[in-house]
Amino acid sequence: MNQFNLDTAIKVLGNTPDTLYALFRSLPNDLIHANEGEATWSPFDVVGHLIHGERTDWIPRLKIILFEDDKHFAPFDRFAQFENSKDQTLLHLLFEFKVLRANNLEYLSSLHLSETDWDKEGIHPEFGSVTVKQLLATWVTHDLGHIAQISRVMAKQYKEDVGPWNQYISILNS
Amino acid sequence: MNQFNLDTAIKVLGNTPDTLYALFRSLPNDLIHANEGEATWSPFDVVGHLIHGERTDWIPRLKIILFEDDKHFAPFDRFAQFENSKDQTLLHLLFEFKVLRANNLEYLSSLHLSETDWDKEGIHPEFGSVTVKQLLATWVTHDLGHIAQISRVMAKQYKEDVGPWNQYISILNS
Repeated sequence: MNQFNLDTAIKVLGNTPDTLYALFRSLPNDLIHANEGEATWSPFDVVGHLIHGERTDWIPRLKIILFEDDKHFAPFDRFAQFENSKDQTLLHLLFEFKVLRANNLEYLSSLHLSETDWDKEGIHPEFGSVTVKQLLATWVTHDLGHIAQISRVMAKQYKEDVGPWNQYISILNS
Repeated sequence: MNQFNLDTAIKVLGNTPDTLYALFRSLPNDLIHANEGEATWSPFDVVGHLIHGERTDWIPRLKIILFEDDKHFAPFDRFAQFENSKDQTLLHLLFEFKVLRANNLEYLSSLHLSETDWDKEGIHPEFGSVTVKQLLATWVTHDLGHIAQISRVMAKQYKEDVGPWNQYISILNS
C-alpha cells in the first residue's frame, strides 16, 4: 500500500466494533472466556482492553500532542480491564466499545487534521518522541492485532481436535 | 475449553461471512489487494480461497467419509482462487461465500451427526486417516486462521507508519 491515508485509517477503526459483534455472535461463554494458558488473555479480556484504550490512550494522547503544553503521555495500563470488566457481560462491553469508538472517531474527524498536524510530536513514556501519524497508525494496527489475537485464541481451543491437520494450521502453533 | 461441541463449531463457522463483511466495509482497493510480499496472499485472495474450500473441501470431504465406498479425499487446490476470483469484485466474492457457507451449514445441520459419526474416517492424500471430528475442527480453525491472516496483512501495510511503536505491535513482526 502507499502512503498513510487518514480516511482509510478511520474506516478500518470504524469497522472494528461490528467485526467483533460478528465474530462473537451467539458464541458460548466457555469460548469467549478461554485463553492460551496462564497470564494470557481471553477474547473477553481483549474487548475490555480495547475499551480502556478508547478511554485513556488514543484520543487522550492525541489531545496532549495537539493542545497541551506538557507533551508527556501518561503510561497506559495494560491490565485495567481485569478490574473494569468484572461482572460485565460481553454484549455490554461490545456496546460500550462501539459507542466509545464512534464518539472518538467523530471527534477525530471533527479535527480536520492536515498533513502538517501529522508531524506534531508527543513524548511517549518509554521511547520518547512520536508523531500524530505514528499514533494513529498504531491505533489501526493495534485493532487488527487484537482481532488476530482473538481469532488465534479461539482457534487454539481446537488444537487437540484437529488431529494431523495441526501441522497445516499455522495459527495453532503461533 | 472443554470437548468438541458441534453446535459451537457451527456457530463459529456461521459467523465468518458477516465478520468479513464488517472487517472489509468501505475499505479502498489498495488495502484489500495489498499483501505481505511476493507469493503471499491479499485479503481478496483469501476470500477466494475460502470460497474454493466451500465448493471442494469441507463438505465434499465429509460426504466422502459418510457416503462413499472409496474414502480417499481429492487433493485441495490452494491456488484455485487466482483463476476463479479474476475480474470479480470483493463484494461479489463475499456474497458468494456467504451463500455457499449458509448452504453448507444448513446441510451439515440436516445430517444430525451423532458422536458416533464423529469418529468415522476418511483418507487424506498426505497424512492418511482423519476423522469427521478432525475435519470439522479443522474447518473452524481454518476460518479463524484466515481471519487472523487478513488482519495481519492489513496491519502490515502500516508497518513503516507506526515508527517506534513497531516493537510493541507483535503482529507487525510475525
